[in-house]
Amino acid sequence: MRQAGRYLPEYQSIRRKVPFLELCKTPDLAAEVTMQPVERLGVDAAILFSDILIPCEAMGQTLEFTESQGPRLAPIRSSSEVDRLIVPDPADRCGFVLEAIREIRRRLVGRVPLIGFAGAPFTLASYMVEGGSSRSFTYLKRMMFAEPATYRKLLDKIAETTALYLSAQIEAGAQAVQIFDSWGGVLSLPDFEEHALPYVSRVVDALPREDVPVIYYVGQAAHLIEPMLESGADVLGIDWRLPLSEARRRIGGRASVQGNLDPAALFGTPEDIERKVSAVLDEAGKAPGHVFNLGHGILPQTNPEHARVLVDAVHRLSSGGTEPRPA
Amino acid sequence: MRQAGRYLPEYQSIRRKVPFLELCKTPDLAAEVTMQPVERLGVDAAILFSDILIPCEAMGQTLEFTESQGPRLAPIRSSSEVDRLIVPDPADRCGFVLEAIREIRRRLVGRVPLIGFAGAPFTLASYMVEGGSSRSFTYLKRMMFAEPATYRKLLDKIAETTALYLSAQIEAGAQAVQIFDSWGGVLSLPDFEEHALPYVSRVVDALPREDVPVIYYVGQAAHLIEPMLESGADVLGIDWRLPLSEARRRIGGRASVQGNLDPAALFGTPEDIERKVSAVLDEAGKAPGHVFNLGHGILPQTNPEHARVLVDAVHRLSSGGTEPRPA
Repeated sequence: MRQAGRYLPEYQSIRRKVPFLELCKTPDLAAEVTMQPVERLGVDAAILFSDILIPCEAMGQTLEFTESQGPRLAPIRSSSEVDRLIVPDPADRCGFVLEAIREIRRRLVGRVPLIGFAGAPFTLASYMVEGGSSRSFTYLKRMMFAEPATYRKLLDKIAETTALYLSAQIEAGAQAVQIFDSWGGVLSLPDFEEHALPYVSRVVDALPREDVPVIYYVGQAAHLIEPMLESGADVLGIDWRLPLSEARRRIGGRASVQGNLDPAALFGTPEDIERKVSAVLDEAGKAPGHVFNLGHGILPQTNPEHARVLVDAVHRLSSGGTEPRPA
Repeated sequence: MRQAGRYLPEYQSIRRKVPFLELCKTPDLAAEVTMQPVERLGVDAAILFSDILIPCEAMGQTLEFTESQGPRLAPIRSSSEVDRLIVPDPADRCGFVLEAIREIRRRLVGRVPLIGFAGAPFTLASYMVEGGSSRSFTYLKRMMFAEPATYRKLLDKIAETTALYLSAQIEAGAQAVQIFDSWGGVLSLPDFEEHALPYVSRVVDALPREDVPVIYYVGQAAHLIEPMLESGADVLGIDWRLPLSEARRRIGGRASVQGNLDPAALFGTPEDIERKVSAVLDEAGKAPGHVFNLGHGILPQTNPEHARVLVDAVHRLSSGGTEPRPA
């Protein structure tokens, strides 16, 4: 999950000067924001600051971010609108992301690895068809069930775009990549297997994989662990709903697991947070093959001190020691 | 799930004349709208037309429905705001609901049973604290984790209100009652057990139960089947995510199951709908103890003819015959 954001005063001070999309498109600033949680929190990896919708704009869709309503896209709902989308060359249309990655690697000088990311095809399609966030995904599901050829054509284009985009991130220096299927969990098991998974698998298969782990995150995935395993990803990321013990039992050693504290847990006291970190580590079995993470993005109202409490607790409790590990 | 609604032209024709909340509060009109799907679709039960937020207003909270943004409530966020809420006498503050139930029973003359309903305490609290629909439930979770005494006081009041309200519905003539925990699935398993389940159990325990089955629906419940069983409900309602075979395996005969076709499946062709109905029935094992239902409310864009196709397919395929059962 993106570690930087509105909960950090140093992030807000930059955002007061620069709109969100301009921040994503300015490599020096994106690099600066990416480094903020590394400096402040002592996390074990840096996560590229960007947005999953960047490739939608590169495909030719109009994109804007509003302060109150989040992303707004000119919705793609017909076959001819899908035809007009392009599969962009990332160097040409998303060069600012690749330049940010190179700049972040220079600033990190090997302290911690850098994780790149992209949206999963189904989740990107949800924004592209709905025109923004959604609750019931009516337009997307209507396309899926009433215009299946249009749906497949759209997902094919998004999968191809995403494969090129993530390959370019790895080429530029991303040392792991994460594929976010934030809304994949709104599908039934058979619909996920038919309408989401094949496109993720195609992306994973296309990546240059030597020493670059692929993390596949699905929100609300309690019913989807088995098909997620079929994606070919090395690490499955899940939200806070499913206990990690249950996730690991169903994964059976075939992939690592990442997660899964409810970000809202950071509203509790430091003692509450430590207790909940300990519970997540216990659920995961304190074993290799677990990457501690929040189960979703950190909430804007979070106290940064509490995020530091979390990171320290993970370090102390997972190493069995009593001191934070050196950052 | 409510069967009436915007997808029916006969509903829209009434709504053009009467705002939503006024419709809920006018027993004759609520009865008329309740009867519409019974007449048109031939469903096997009628579901009271009302809204889960009616008791919030009765508790003293300001409530309005906007056409574009759905329900708006004056948010309850502090201990003193919780103190000002009352536990209303349903006959006094929600008499129009009880009168609607009596009127619907008169109109049904025993054709099909009538199902009453209420929101589950956690889900009602989410609307009361957030002030409307939410995606991340930040205010509610902040209260839960940072002000637990306030949270418990609020949930106690809602549970007491809901127990009285559903008991009054049964007294007025509801032949089954459904408790909707639409947002319960946003909680982790331990948080659900601590912060949602006890209040539902208290409601179920308080109901006069002879021959009145209690249905407990939780949205996104793939990780919550086991605690749902602890609620004491006779029937567990789930959405389309978890296959019914898996739900029934975990329920192990201790409750019946209700569900679970994705309402968006009605966007497909009649042949698609029949195939998906058949798949749901197969998943449920075509066995007693399964109540066929959509996994969530019917979508406004649904073609009413497709809803009729669904009902006919359920009748034909679950009875093993080739003709719709007489309504």
